[in-house]
Amino acid sequence: MYKIIEIFIESKKFRYFITSLIIFNGIILGIATSKPIMADYGSIINFLDKSIIAIFTIEIILRIYVHRVSFFKDPWSLFDFFVVAISLVPAGEQWAILRTLRVLRLFRLLTIIPQMRTIVSALLGAIPGIFSISIMLLLFFYVFSIMATDIFGDAFPQWFGTLGESMYTLFQIMTLESWSMGIVRPVMEVFPLAWIFFVIYILVVTFVMINLFIGIIVDAIFTIKDDEKQEKKLNDIEKLQVEVRELKEIIINMDKRLK
Amino acid sequence: MYKIIEIFIESKKFRYFITSLIIFNGIILGIATSKPIMADYGSIINFLDKSIIAIFTIEIILRIYVHRVSFFKDPWSLFDFFVVAISLVPAGEQWAILRTLRVLRLFRLLTIIPQMRTIVSALLGAIPGIFSISIMLLLFFYVFSIMATDIFGDAFPQWFGTLGESMYTLFQIMTLESWSMGIVRPVMEVFPLAWIFFVIYILVVTFVMINLFIGIIVDAIFTIKDDEKQEKKLNDIEKLQVEVRELKEIIINMDKRLK
Amino acid sequence: MYKIIEIFIESKKFRYFITSLIIFNGIILGIATSKPIMADYGSIINFLDKSIIAIFTIEIILRIYVHRVSFFKDPWSLFDFFVVAISLVPAGEQWAILRTLRVLRLFRLLTIIPQMRTIVSALLGAIPGIFSISIMLLLFFYVFSIMATDIFGDAFPQWFGTLGESMYTLFQIMTLESWSMGIVRPVMEVFPLAWIFFVIYILVVTFVMINLFIGIIVDAIFTIKDDEKQEKKLNDIEKLQVEVRELKEIIINMDKRLK
Amino acid sequence: MYKIIEIFIESKKFRYFITSLIIFNGIILGIATSKPIMADYGSIINFLDKSIIAIFTIEIILRIYVHRVSFFKDPWSLFDFFVVAISLVPAGEQWAILRTLRVLRLFRLLTIIPQMRTIVSALLGAIPGIFSISIMLLLFFYVFSIMATDIFGDAFPQWFGTLGESMYTLFQIMTLESWSMGIVRPVMEVFPLAWIFFVIYILVVTFVMINLFIGIIVDAIFTIKDDEKQEKKLNDIEKLQVEVRELKEIIINMDKRLK
Repeated sequence: MYKIIEIFIESKKFRYFITSLIIFNGIILGIATSKPIMADYGSIINFLDKSIIAIFTIEIILRIYVHRVSFFKDPWSLFDFFVVAISLVPAGEQWAILRTLRVLRLFRLLTIIPQMRTIVSALLGAIPGIFSISIMLLLFFYVFSIMATDIFGDAFPQWFGTLGESMYTLFQIMTLESWSMGIVRPVMEVFPLAWIFFVIYILVVTFVMINLFIGIIVDAIFTIKDDEKQEKKLNDIEKLQVEVRELKEIIINMDKRLK
Repeated sequence: MYKIIEIFIESKKFRYFITSLIIFNGIILGIATSKPIMADYGSIINFLDKSIIAIFTIEIILRIYVHRVSFFKDPWSLFDFFVVAISLVPAGEQWAILRTLRVLRLFRLLTIIPQMRTIVSALLGAIPGIFSISIMLLLFFYVFSIMATDIFGDAFPQWFGTLGESMYTLFQIMTLESWSMGIVRPVMEVFPLAWIFFVIYILVVTFVMINLFIGIIVDAIFTIKDDEKQEKKLNDIEKLQVEVRELKEIIINMDKRLK
Repeated sequence: MYKIIEIFIESKKFRYFITSLIIFNGIILGIATSKPIMADYGSIINFLDKSIIAIFTIEIILRIYVHRVSFFKDPWSLFDFFVVAISLVPAGEQWAILRTLRVLRLFRLLTIIPQMRTIVSALLGAIPGIFSISIMLLLFFYVFSIMATDIFGDAFPQWFGTLGESMYTLFQIMTLESWSMGIVRPVMEVFPLAWIFFVIYILVVTFVMINLFIGIIVDAIFTIKDDEKQEKKLNDIEKLQVEVRELKEIIINMDKRLK
Repeated sequence: MYKIIEIFIESKKFRYFITSLIIFNGIILGIATSKPIMADYGSIINFLDKSIIAIFTIEIILRIYVHRVSFFKDPWSLFDFFVVAISLVPAGEQWAILRTLRVLRLFRLLTIIPQMRTIVSALLGAIPGIFSISIMLLLFFYVFSIMATDIFGDAFPQWFGTLGESMYTLFQIMTLESWSMGIVRPVMEVFPLAWIFFVIYILVVTFVMINLFIGIIVDAIFTIKDDEKQEKKLNDIEKLQVEVRELKEIIINMDKRLK
């Protein structure tokens, strides 16, 4: 029994079935955003959605039954477990957000298609390389937010009233969205020298972000693709060294005998 | 007759003639956007445009006559066929858009100039490399759109009323255009925690897009230019290996005889 | 006399003097933008500016005297000649713009400092590599402008009224500035499907610009820095080949004698 | 006594203690931006902040005592000295800004954590490489600002009234923020040809900035990572050369004896 289930859930056909089901679920969840369609066919849509959740739940249970503890050690499986579990929590008035988070189960497409897994791994793999520079960026962000709250908080409470509001506004300025016409020009009418603060902030943050960006490029260039050819070349040279060394030995032996 | 036509349409002179005709057509179509000029010289402009279409039609017919089936197998030829055919469809009131699409025939410049073909090929060649990461981006886009419609649809129907409107708005936010002052700040007045949704969206989408971008850079660096020199070096090393092997054989033979 | 002038204008001290003079002129031209200062010290500022122009004119005359025809063959010298000549044209009411263009003479800083020349050369050297892709971008730009004028011209004359206005608006959209809230959303109220046109435009133009950008990066990586080490390595391998070939000859000779 | 203090302040534990203290200070300074919390617990927060400053002051004094003159030669130490000294200056009404600058002491996190020091060094190390191109960018910026003040100053004093205002506005345009809808379209209503000035400015500045950006990428690629493998390869080839040369000598000797 255990063996049969294992073969079943590991089979390609089953994976294709689940993949199709996720895509189908995506279409249904998309349709479910339309009020007129839900008014007419809401019960069918809901029934289909609930059926799919049921199948997903059974799938996860079978996978836990087969893999046991190792299921909970695999981050991909844990992700599947988490997004299916969310769909099962009854969402009352208070936790309406949970109903929305159910859509996250469509991200199972990333965990079930091997090529997608590779990309997700590559993307996550780029994070450690930018970790310390991100920490530094956060520190800048935090220090500038405290200063902005201190200086502009009283005059512009809607933008810099609290530390949180300052952080949001400085995040907006980091993306360069309406930074001047929307924020800094009005601020400069009260604080004529405010441009010093914001221009320094923009220059520093842009410079750090460009370097963060370059960090990822350089990493990508040297880890992903470089190796293949380089390896081949190194190997060729090493083979050559071995051959030359063998040659040398033969000749040295000859030389001895000839003496 | 067939031979003469083949030589004629494959000749450099004919290609230069068609190239000039496309450029001339471009100028005419540009002039034709000016109402005052069209009021005075509209009949001349239209006559010239129709004559050019006629020449293009004859050219395409001759090329089909010469290349037969292989004409329809070549994507460049198909493109030419398609954009000339559009110009021939009579555009009534209902299909006014067809009249506009006639301008697409200027893109024949990309198919007729060899250097342009190379660039278009290179650009299209960059697409497969970013295919799976684009699919992933689309998935994020779709999931966030469903969530946005769910959460903000009722309060902000002009931005998130339907799935389509949410997708458009999230595309706008992806380009960072007016995302904060235009969209998120108004939304935050109703949903104070909306920034969580949008900041996560911006961070994820920007991060994925940077990686998509880097994917193209890395591909470009390693496919287009690297090969030449690397190849030369590999060849040199391989030649060296062959020579060293030959040397070894000679010496081994010598060695045998000397024993 | 000729020799003395040549030594004089080619001397380091003279170049430093002219460099300082350009910088000093920059400061004066900056001060001259201030109305209150000009009201009080206008005559001094103008006198200083005119004196500097006089010195520059003498300098150019001396350089023409020394270098003769080759002066007019050197693009850097021609640039100096051009920007100094502009300053000498009497600017009447009608040609007020000429008075403004005098500021261009500050760009002489780029031609007189050797490091700056190098950078300007490098920047200009990046242009041929992106020439054909720029032509392609211009073609897209032109075709989309004609279409935009055709479709949206009547309803939105302030943005798409003429071909020129469409080109300006599409340039603005290319920089992503207010493209959605400012232009496309208002347009979509009249043409609900306008987003198709603009989203395609943005995707195509962004994709082409990213590739243009990558073209410069790849070129820069492979032309500027790669050579040094690669050359060394190639040379080493070639030397090795020569040595192995010599070895082979010696051994073949030995082998013959031993037979 | 001197030895004990030296061992004490150089110890890992002391560094961890100061690091924790900086982080704790960061939290306190963050909390201190909240008016309601300060109303209730202001005295405690202020006491904690002052205690931390006291500890930092003692730390700096001890480090000066230990390192003497070399303390003032180390830029990291000088930075620590500077940010702690700012916190000690009594901030009256007139120098309220000093109170805000106290937050800068959180940047000590960058000088105390070794990994952060490495990143800061790397970031600062990228500056010389872009120095001359930045100078060039500044020159463009300055020349365009003078011209903008000259041409648009009278009609749009809020944007181009003085050289400083023009520089700020051109900086805003450089970041592409509201450049068209906010600035250039209004300007074009008075000066219909103003687009020439601004489009040239945007194209030049964007092109120079892309090249500046590429300069950093190329530098990063070739200095940081390239060396390792390349070195190994070069060494291998050189070893090979040595071996082949030795081989040659042996054979030449053999050859001589055989003659």
